[in-house]
Amino acid sequence: MKSQRLTVGVLGGMGPEATVDFMAEVLAATPANEDQDHLRMLVDQNPQLLSRQLALAGKGGSPGPQLAAMARGLEKGGADFLVMPCNTAHAYQADIVAATTIPLVSIIDETVAECSGAEQVGLLATVGCFDAGVYQSAFAAAGQTLIMPTAAELEEFTRLVAAIKLGKQGEDIANAMATLANALVGRGAQVVVAGCTEIPLVLDASMLAVPLISSTAVLARSTVALALGERPLG
Amino acid sequence: MKSQRLTVGVLGGMGPEATVDFMAEVLAATPANEDQDHLRMLVDQNPQLLSRQLALAGKGGSPGPQLAAMARGLEKGGADFLVMPCNTAHAYQADIVAATTIPLVSIIDETVAECSGAEQVGLLATVGCFDAGVYQSAFAAAGQTLIMPTAAELEEFTRLVAAIKLGKQGEDIANAMATLANALVGRGAQVVVAGCTEIPLVLDASMLAVPLISSTAVLARSTVALALGERPLG
Repeated sequence: MKSQRLTVGVLGGMGPEATVDFMAEVLAATPANEDQDHLRMLVDQNPQLLSRQLALAGKGGSPGPQLAAMARGLEKGGADFLVMPCNTAHAYQADIVAATTIPLVSIIDETVAECSGAEQVGLLATVGCFDAGVYQSAFAAAGQTLIMPTAAELEEFTRLVAAIKLGKQGEDIANAMATLANALVGRGAQVVVAGCTEIPLVLDASMLAVPLISSTAVLARSTVALALGERPLG
Repeated sequence: MKSQRLTVGVLGGMGPEATVDFMAEVLAATPANEDQDHLRMLVDQNPQLLSRQLALAGKGGSPGPQLAAMARGLEKGGADFLVMPCNTAHAYQADIVAATTIPLVSIIDETVAECSGAEQVGLLATVGCFDAGVYQSAFAAAGQTLIMPTAAELEEFTRLVAAIKLGKQGEDIANAMATLANALVGRGAQVVVAGCTEIPLVLDASMLAVPLISSTAVLARSTVALALGERPLG
């Protein structure tokens, strides 16, 4: 038991398969020769959270109080810091931060930092994520230009994410997602951000002509670096 | 939010990849049209638990007190019942049961029940799992004959599990695992139990001439049935 390691609290279930994918990415990013080298993670896999999309569209209650309760539970259980492998839910970051004394490592901030070399950044994200503006403000603060989907492309993206959540993750869905990403490249994107954790379930870097920044993989690498003490927290 | 559903507590991390595999099996076994149809699971992914193999060989301290603390934490967090996607760790089932008031659904009992049609059952499991005798007593009570690996086969199995835990999950490891399973079939096994949750990370049912009973998949299906109330608890 390596006691200097931090325990990770995971606000999960949004969606549930993306959380499983995130956990697998954390394992892949951890240098390990045996079980005991891996990180302890307390995971609240709560897919029953109120819909973020409905709430952000003004059509449903806020999941903020539920996220706050989940965060408090993870802190009580022994988590040293929190991560949430869902971009859209970061619209409710303030509820989480107010509810606990441990830091939330933002998938938005980590992903934006990963794009520092690019002047023009393509972003695929949900309608709710765009409406909340979490990425727009972060990239604007960094002085980078965002290249976003058109309304028609965003409608297509919504359809694809719904299909992925139903387990439809075949070549047709992957190719349709690549088409959306490559449209951003055609309009000048030097990198494309997979700013929704469902995207990497179908889209692979090899399908794009520019680098694909998976927010899931970025958060996983940051999680490992912070838990191992390779990077200071906060 | 479907409040009639039970919350699952997962004693995880033994090994960590097997827990991720279990979570994916639960998702696959859950009928769902949207995120909210999936189960809430509180997962304590704790790979830093003391080695079960060393403890059962009399060469290390018992992980029982750590498992008891994890179980208490999951109960406090709101779990209605516990599962542990690791066969060997069920040697410490008594520590877990004594520590909480919620039931532990045994991967051993669920897997044995799944084999009810077979008179002769082949079993692949770790040295520690065999030493603890958890499967032997359950199958004896059910009146079924166990066909176990030879000492040499068990040594080979130990080597394969260590490789799988290091991420070596290619065709050579899969074929070597199939050879071990098929040796049990050659000695009369009518089904083969993958009685270690690392096995399904490489071995597929299509590689055997008889049915392969994955303890991971069996526990996942039981978890879903119990959480959805399709089967009563305890």
